[in-house]
Amino acid sequence: MRYFPPRIILSAFAAFAFLLSEQPSSAQSQWVDPFIGTDGMGHTFPGACVPFGMVQLSPDTDTIPHNVGGVYQKEVYSYCAGYRHSDPTVVGFSHTHLSGTGHSDLGDILIMPTVGRLRLNPGTASDPDSGYRSRFSHEGETARPGYYRVHLDDYDVDAELSVTERVGLHRYTFHGGEDTGHLIMDLSHGLYNYEGKTLWSSVRVENDSTLTGYRITNGWGRTNYVYFAVRFSSPVKEYGFREKKAPQYAGFWRKLDQGHNFPEMAGRGIVCWFDFPLEENPVIEVKVALSPTGTDGALKNLEAETGGMGFDEVKDKAIASWDRELSSISIEATPDQKRMFYTSYYHTLINPSLYCDVDGRYRGLDGNVHEGNGGMNYTVFSLWDTYRAEHPFLLLMKPDRAKDMISSMLSHYDQSVHGLLPIWSLMGNEGWCMSGYHAVSVLSDAIVKGLDIDEDKALEAMVSTSKVGYLDGLGEYIKKGYVPMESSSTSASNSLEYSYDDFAIFSAASYLGRTDIASEYAGRADNYLNVFDIVDGFAKPRSGEGEFKTPFNPLRTDGEGFIEGNSWNFSFHVPQDVGNLVKLMGGDSGFIGRLDELFSMTLSPEYYAANEDITEDCLIGGYVHGNEPSHHVPYLYAWTSQPWKTQEWVRDIMNRMYRPVIKGLGGNDDCGQMSAWYLFTAMGFYPVCPGTDEYVIGAPYFPYMKIDLPGGKTLEIKADGVSDRRRYVRSVYLNGKRWNKRFFSHSDLMEGGVIEFKMASWPERNPRNIPSIMPYSFSDDPLSQQ
Amino acid sequence: MRYFPPRIILSAFAAFAFLLSEQPSSAQSQWVDPFIGTDGMGHTFPGACVPFGMVQLSPDTDTIPHNVGGVYQKEVYSYCAGYRHSDPTVVGFSHTHLSGTGHSDLGDILIMPTVGRLRLNPGTASDPDSGYRSRFSHEGETARPGYYRVHLDDYDVDAELSVTERVGLHRYTFHGGEDTGHLIMDLSHGLYNYEGKTLWSSVRVENDSTLTGYRITNGWGRTNYVYFAVRFSSPVKEYGFREKKAPQYAGFWRKLDQGHNFPEMAGRGIVCWFDFPLEENPVIEVKVALSPTGTDGALKNLEAETGGMGFDEVKDKAIASWDRELSSISIEATPDQKRMFYTSYYHTLINPSLYCDVDGRYRGLDGNVHEGNGGMNYTVFSLWDTYRAEHPFLLLMKPDRAKDMISSMLSHYDQSVHGLLPIWSLMGNEGWCMSGYHAVSVLSDAIVKGLDIDEDKALEAMVSTSKVGYLDGLGEYIKKGYVPMESSSTSASNSLEYSYDDFAIFSAASYLGRTDIASEYAGRADNYLNVFDIVDGFAKPRSGEGEFKTPFNPLRTDGEGFIEGNSWNFSFHVPQDVGNLVKLMGGDSGFIGRLDELFSMTLSPEYYAANEDITEDCLIGGYVHGNEPSHHVPYLYAWTSQPWKTQEWVRDIMNRMYRPVIKGLGGNDDCGQMSAWYLFTAMGFYPVCPGTDEYVIGAPYFPYMKIDLPGGKTLEIKADGVSDRRRYVRSVYLNGKRWNKRFFSHSDLMEGGVIEFKMASWPERNPRNIPSIMPYSFSDDPLSQQ
Repeated sequence: MRYFPPRIILSAFAAFAFLLSEQPSSAQSQWVDPFIGTDGMGHTFPGACVPFGMVQLSPDTDTIPHNVGGVYQKEVYSYCAGYRHSDPTVVGFSHTHLSGTGHSDLGDILIMPTVGRLRLNPGTASDPDSGYRSRFSHEGETARPGYYRVHLDDYDVDAELSVTERVGLHRYTFHGGEDTGHLIMDLSHGLYNYEGKTLWSSVRVENDSTLTGYRITNGWGRTNYVYFAVRFSSPVKEYGFREKKAPQYAGFWRKLDQGHNFPEMAGRGIVCWFDFPLEENPVIEVKVALSPTGTDGALKNLEAETGGMGFDEVKDKAIASWDRELSSISIEATPDQKRMFYTSYYHTLINPSLYCDVDGRYRGLDGNVHEGNGGMNYTVFSLWDTYRAEHPFLLLMKPDRAKDMISSMLSHYDQSVHGLLPIWSLMGNEGWCMSGYHAVSVLSDAIVKGLDIDEDKALEAMVSTSKVGYLDGLGEYIKKGYVPMESSSTSASNSLEYSYDDFAIFSAASYLGRTDIASEYAGRADNYLNVFDIVDGFAKPRSGEGEFKTPFNPLRTDGEGFIEGNSWNFSFHVPQDVGNLVKLMGGDSGFIGRLDELFSMTLSPEYYAANEDITEDCLIGGYVHGNEPSHHVPYLYAWTSQPWKTQEWVRDIMNRMYRPVIKGLGGNDDCGQMSAWYLFTAMGFYPVCPGTDEYVIGAPYFPYMKIDLPGGKTLEIKADGVSDRRRYVRSVYLNGKRWNKRFFSHSDLMEGGVIEFKMASWPERNPRNIPSIMPYSFSDDPLSQQ
Repeated sequence: MRYFPPRIILSAFAAFAFLLSEQPSSAQSQWVDPFIGTDGMGHTFPGACVPFGMVQLSPDTDTIPHNVGGVYQKEVYSYCAGYRHSDPTVVGFSHTHLSGTGHSDLGDILIMPTVGRLRLNPGTASDPDSGYRSRFSHEGETARPGYYRVHLDDYDVDAELSVTERVGLHRYTFHGGEDTGHLIMDLSHGLYNYEGKTLWSSVRVENDSTLTGYRITNGWGRTNYVYFAVRFSSPVKEYGFREKKAPQYAGFWRKLDQGHNFPEMAGRGIVCWFDFPLEENPVIEVKVALSPTGTDGALKNLEAETGGMGFDEVKDKAIASWDRELSSISIEATPDQKRMFYTSYYHTLINPSLYCDVDGRYRGLDGNVHEGNGGMNYTVFSLWDTYRAEHPFLLLMKPDRAKDMISSMLSHYDQSVHGLLPIWSLMGNEGWCMSGYHAVSVLSDAIVKGLDIDEDKALEAMVSTSKVGYLDGLGEYIKKGYVPMESSSTSASNSLEYSYDDFAIFSAASYLGRTDIASEYAGRADNYLNVFDIVDGFAKPRSGEGEFKTPFNPLRTDGEGFIEGNSWNFSFHVPQDVGNLVKLMGGDSGFIGRLDELFSMTLSPEYYAANEDITEDCLIGGYVHGNEPSHHVPYLYAWTSQPWKTQEWVRDIMNRMYRPVIKGLGGNDDCGQMSAWYLFTAMGFYPVCPGTDEYVIGAPYFPYMKIDLPGGKTLEIKADGVSDRRRYVRSVYLNGKRWNKRFFSHSDLMEGGVIEFKMASWPERNPRNIPSIMPYSFSDDPLSQQ
């Protein structure tokens, strides 16, 4: 037998392990790093969830109230997802989180294991011993899709989390040798919390190992009902609760000793404790099922998803569910690139989220419980963000989900007393966040791309939505063709957004042959023109009298009539009619000049310092990738003589805004929108104008990508030798045929096959070699003249 | 043609009208005076309801908060039903009221019509112009079963109210000639209100004449969900709302102009206003449907019960529904007696109340919505009061309702985390009011009287209920055979009540042949003995060590271990074993002496002055008819050699405690218990011990009564010449046969036929002429020795 020095054996073993981990399409979840974005601007959470699940079980590292005595507490912005990687303590583990938002809510049903003296308040980060929270370090922390683990240093407890779609699983291993372990359940805890946010909370101890309960909160979700059912792996020994806000009225309950082993606990924000004997078994597993309909729904979900299953089985299934979803795309890439790619893919599959029981029942916008009628109900539609790339991405990759999401939007419309599609759907509530009525974009996109939805109903909902006069200047917009600056603080961007949304309605109506509607909205799709000052080619706020705002600074983000963007960025927000926008901005050279200047200028901090969501890190010149209004802008070169400049900039954006490190995201991930931009861009194309069926070609990021399309076909994207240097596309071949368009249509992609990009380190500047067929522009559409 | 002077014509017309109104068994509702009991101690309400309806639409004349900064406001006791006849102003009309209780809640969804300056607070009685309330006088007021009318002097508005089971109807006629009428809807209004009682309230303007909404309150009903749907007879012109408690957090709602014509209004207690044009039509009709399940349920109830119907049609139906129910008993009596009799009958048919949608769906004790499975769900079980006579009365007269009520109690048990039958069921909540677990009495009574219920389930529920150790000393009671005074402030009465309830379980188990259970509860049925001091024959609190309380005053109501009664009254609370009680109190003469002394003593106010529910008016000697523990006491002479003394006292009680005037009720009507006592006593018998099938014979009150029994048979009760003087029963005949028992069994009555009482102005004292067969006593039951 030949002797191998240990180092060689280890290396061989490592190589073998590497090979194993490289198994294609089987364990892509290994590449996902849930910590990416959990500090800095990303606002992602590291905890456990499954694709589109209702439960996101994740550690919360602080409990900054967002409102103290009516005063907004700025620091809370950092805690949108409950977790900051740089924090020293964990408060506990709560079951609902938004992924990557800039405003927040939820953090429902916090559980925390402790030992020793019973503490029923969270304490502070500066004095963790004052409450039930615990110190932790990242050495004791692991996160994988569907699984999270942390060591709680103060209690010497290993906390592990996993999930199904509707059930959170906790496994707490007490290492300290105590006789008794406490589990704290804090129903007053929440994200963006404030005194009195919990309107009511209730826990019933159904038997020695089962709880049911609920809480109703008044936060961003105006009235959020979270029902739960809890099952412990071993019997509770003793329990009790404390109500933070003593009841003003206790009725005849006061004659009952409710504080100790009384199985009905309730109040305006209660903190319960449950004691378990540890002598025989120092491991406690806890299942927490959620439901939007009732505790009966929660019990049903508990049984259906985890009945008879232990922690490890659930964990394996959770990881497998991610592998299944993520394996639909395989790439050739460096490990770092794979980490970033699959983490991005992961982030696109968290929100929207299920919001229904296993049988489809859910709480509607009208507060009533509705039957699902076969489909599943979804919520968390951050539409101002996600209409751009997240929804188009899901439509392309997960059309069955997309279909249910659209049904959910139509149900929302049916249940809306305003006759509105969702603007920001949040747990059976309308969150009214941001501007526009971009659900129409998602619906229109689905219609023109042929998704099987109720098209007539969708069109009815789109039209109804676009006529709700009291929506942020919309009534005036309908009358005047633009939102007067007197009617809204974001009048210019509202006008641009409404105009684009109206194009989406036009497009769907045209597709469906509804010429009456198409004709009406063809007029409205042009309304963007009414806020353009043709003197300088900038969109600007305009008074009811028709005067443009003066003085006006197109570099300033605040106070100039735009939302989360300045006029320099937002003036490009005419995705429906880039051809005409080019003209408005001085023709081909003028337009190219404007784009070039945007990417290369130096933006003084004075123009964005007041904005919590813009930092130097998310800027490329004056281009702000961290906020969404600019996401399509790098692709606008496609309408010019220099489409190669898109290829130049998108790779820079990929490299600088998406880094596989904790603070690596150049902006809020915004429920997957940032990540969906990454994924499309990595593929080499981007849906600049949802509501058309076109994906504008940019440049692929990886040498090879294979996409398993939903219909069973396969799309291969080849870009031999692509690199930061060889970022330029010299030519494109689809199934071996030279491609002469600057875009792919949806059906081009869905046919499957091979797209081959010929890459080079220098751009193709010869007009004869550049694909000649331009992407869609509304002005060129014969129907635009209806 | 002969000339008649006008006065004669009028008189003849009046006589004719009187004859018409005397039609037997067709319009008994004419005799009901809903104002009886609306001042003084009765705590009844004058507004509109239908038998057992979910809606009691009634004027509230003040809004005394029951709790200000944690301090109980004593005056609120007078406002249990929302209305005090002596008050000068009406605050508005709310849709839910309890009938005759001594603690309260509800007053949901107040509506008030006004004109002129919009006021969104109720104002005060001393300065009505400071709010939306109005002055009124009784000249402008009418009340009939199912109909109420008042003239609102401040606004010159005629307000009329009527109802179906689940819908309140308002008709407001504006006489002032104004252009615009306001309707105020105050969701912060309530009975036993306090700052913050409304946890959440919401109104949606679905269209120009339809609202939906709900409120959740935390009062006596710990979490009470009241959903509603409103339909106006004409379109709303403008509307808006004010939130009394400004929101700490408004999210993105703040960018919407919610105050004016914004169709989604919500907050922690909102006051809405709706303006109507009056020029063309000065009459506004409003339908308000309630539901415990959701606004969808409320809309369903609205359509099912009032779809297409106007106010007058509903009013006619409401009155007819009362005539139908009340016509089952006809009597010969003076007009005043008829007023008192039918008003009492009316009061027995208000509570319990329906608590479900038209399709039977309801909100259970577990907070979830349940299907009715064919039956209707009831709530408002004031069981400490109503097990005595109200439930036996309904079992006798309305067995179909009684059956659904018992099913509702069994559902309550199924949904109780404690495994408890209801103690005080209040809108899907357990109210924990008063002592004992008297639902077992109702169930046992139904079983031994042969009602078709799920007997096995009932017995299971009864046994489970009797074993909930943490219920007010019950654990100790089970261990020691009595509640030690250390465990409860009402230890002596608890022991007596538990012991009686245990007898009821024994009795049902015996009837069902479950000798195992019967044997266990035979032991517990004797536990009353453990609190009797044989030295003086008084029940007393006893320490855990076994010592009776010293000093001890059997005359004192508070602080001596009894609830709503002193030992003088409460010591008679052994309805299951009066035969043995006689022995404990010194045998026949001693027992008679004790009863005589009770009725003839002078009770010094010092013994009851602190009790809000005892006044001189409700005393007969030391006998307190205004509270329930004594209700069976006048009938206890039946176990002695002088049963005629029952005949003597019950007529006095009838005459003094039930007077057909505003302040005529000698105590809280207590959800019909006081009235059911009246009705049984008027019939000439009373269910001293529910859980046996016996009705102990007293003396009839009217010369003739005809009862249409539920099975189609008829029971006639004749007492020729009965009067205050001729109050004594000389002999009794059943269907012509001399009756030799001191009681009727349930089947005796249900057979129908004729009971004939021979009355005289002097009692029958000859033992040979007194019926010899005594009513039931547990000690004499061979099974009691199990």
